[in-house]
Amino acid sequence: MDYNISLIPGDGIGPEIVSEARKVLDKVCEVYGHTFSYSKVLLGGASIDVHGVPLTEEAIATAKASDAVLMGSIGGDAKTSPWYKLEPSKRPEAGLLAIRKALNLFANLRPAYLYNELKDACPLKEQIIGDGFDMIIVRELTGGLYFGARKTTEENGVKTAVDTLSYNENEIRRIAIKAFDIAMKRRKKVTSVDKANVLDSSRLWRSVVEEVARDYPEVTLEHMLVDNCAMQLVRDPKQFDVILTENMFGDILSDEASMVTGSIGMLSSASLNETKFGLYEPSHGSAPDIAGQNKANPIATILSAAMMLRYSLDLDKEADAVEAAVQKVLTDGYRTGDIMSKGCTLVGTKEMGNLIAKEI
Amino acid sequence: MDYNISLIPGDGIGPEIVSEARKVLDKVCEVYGHTFSYSKVLLGGASIDVHGVPLTEEAIATAKASDAVLMGSIGGDAKTSPWYKLEPSKRPEAGLLAIRKALNLFANLRPAYLYNELKDACPLKEQIIGDGFDMIIVRELTGGLYFGARKTTEENGVKTAVDTLSYNENEIRRIAIKAFDIAMKRRKKVTSVDKANVLDSSRLWRSVVEEVARDYPEVTLEHMLVDNCAMQLVRDPKQFDVILTENMFGDILSDEASMVTGSIGMLSSASLNETKFGLYEPSHGSAPDIAGQNKANPIATILSAAMMLRYSLDLDKEADAVEAAVQKVLTDGYRTGDIMSKGCTLVGTKEMGNLIAKEI
Ligand SMILES: CC(C)[C@H](C(=O)O)[C@@H](O)C(=O)O
Ligand SMILES: CC(C)[C@H](C(=O)O)[C@@H](O)C(=O)O
Repeated sequence: MDYNISLIPGDGIGPEIVSEARKVLDKVCEVYGHTFSYSKVLLGGASIDVHGVPLTEEAIATAKASDAVLMGSIGGDAKTSPWYKLEPSKRPEAGLLAIRKALNLFANLRPAYLYNELKDACPLKEQIIGDGFDMIIVRELTGGLYFGARKTTEENGVKTAVDTLSYNENEIRRIAIKAFDIAMKRRKKVTSVDKANVLDSSRLWRSVVEEVARDYPEVTLEHMLVDNCAMQLVRDPKQFDVILTENMFGDILSDEASMVTGSIGMLSSASLNETKFGLYEPSHGSAPDIAGQNKANPIATILSAAMMLRYSLDLDKEADAVEAAVQKVLTDGYRTGDIMSKGCTLVGTKEMGNLIAKEI
Repeated sequence: MDYNISLIPGDGIGPEIVSEARKVLDKVCEVYGHTFSYSKVLLGGASIDVHGVPLTEEAIATAKASDAVLMGSIGGDAKTSPWYKLEPSKRPEAGLLAIRKALNLFANLRPAYLYNELKDACPLKEQIIGDGFDMIIVRELTGGLYFGARKTTEENGVKTAVDTLSYNENEIRRIAIKAFDIAMKRRKKVTSVDKANVLDSSRLWRSVVEEVARDYPEVTLEHMLVDNCAMQLVRDPKQFDVILTENMFGDILSDEASMVTGSIGMLSSASLNETKFGLYEPSHGSAPDIAGQNKANPIATILSAAMMLRYSLDLDKEADAVEAAVQKVLTDGYRTGDIMSKGCTLVGTKEMGNLIAKEI
């Protein structure tokens, strides 16, 4: 089959990890007889350098015209990166929020799991070792505090800044449906996280989630307050299957959950709209400190490409093959620096890409 | 000296742990020649039962007239507790937010530290063992999303709920000053946590914090995004000395940090206004499942009483004595169930109170 994929290399280590993911996709095309064509899209620092703004209309149009978007990572040290040319209020966060909105990517899926091979690096291994750790956070991505009206005013010499957290029933319903659909293919448990003991938006969230739950009698729904959830992720992370939550809580909790696994360099993510279209990127950042040194772990991006094959291109067999190749290379003892442990073979970004591509 | 203390026993295990703290305070009075008189104040479920509302004007007046407030814990299983008699929007959260506002308790101090004796229970002991873990979260407690305007409206059959996050410079300045003052007595490092890459309120936060920092040249200030902070608390909690943050971020991060220590039953908290007045309570909840069974750990409440002696009553020597008594009893191997480990002696709530009182 022919597919068109938008590539956003991004900043920092972005270009090098995307290039390894592309190597793996090239091998998938060769073995399974597909043709992928790629359009490069500029976002963040790379776009500011060329166009003076983090995201152009043209970039949005290119992305929209493709079957899926594969991204490296954007961001960098604010003091040195081109972002600094923009006023802070023009940055949020250098095109990432704007592209999510423009492409209507309301559903952010962030799996947090642990490969058996990497248990040693897991800071909570005592709670987790034994029967594994595999959860997914379903985060609402285009509403809430990050997209509400904001303003800073001044009265009698005192500035006041206001941000707004707003959700309507439709926004809540569609993300809840996503979470329950995903739970049906997993261990059938949804933990909906909110602050319903204080916030109106959380009370509405809770009631819509309960309404959606009625259509999924097989799924166990539990509500948890966000402060308690931040505790439970440390105390007993294995209790979770699917966490469903709003934008900001999801931002905080998914970063916490990924760290609990100890292998953030391994975690992929997908941001989906109502169709099959999606944007795929590693959960980790742009690590400007190691950019260009052939040190970055490309696996999270390669696994994001696997998610893309599965969710946007309907190529399940191919996605399985990529995931199996990653598993094989880990079993064979190859590691980048971030996941290195005794007795394993240290490899660079490119070597890791080659090894995985070879297994397909 | 004579002092008047308001006691809020609260719900669940609240009454039994407060009663042990009082036992310890009685011993302090006896040994050091003070007289404490106590006024009981109803809050939460206990107040709903008697007055139909979680907090009365009279309760506020009693609290205001005293030198400090010592509280157990409020809350409970919403389905069985008297809170259920209230509409959800009347609960937030059963008087706790209202009393904070009424007493102007804008500064919430939540230490998270680890006794050497309890290292085994610390889920992150590998990162922490060695040179200990001792940080404090300074959380703004009367502003932000928990106190902003909120409303739920309906248009064309679709409900929308809105909450508002607002901060002015004065609110930010006074809490920042608190954090820097505390840092001066500690390791002189402040990590200010915000989401300045997105929120206007966080950008204002950051600029006011920087302004305050100029008056404390000896203190190192670092800014951290809230999602990153949730990661860093798991990855490397020892990097922190004082975390300064707004209300909701502080709610989430302080619960996470307390869990990282593995001994939430040991952690105290203080909520202070601009004077010496404050409300002191354990960091943990009301644990209705073990209420009345002589199982609860009273140490967090006893240590909260020690904070009260220190911050509100200026009785430093007495506070030291209480803290030393707790340390002694732990060294002697006495433990309540939540912190029990091999070779130690299991004791109940009352026995733990007796043991600590005896050491003063
Ligand atoms: C860069 C930032 C705006 C973004 C967010 O908070 O959504 C990032 O932290 C993420 O989680 O994708
Ligand atoms: C009960 C609730 C409103 C409260 C809060 O979120 O402030 C609690 O979680 C706390 O941290 O004291």
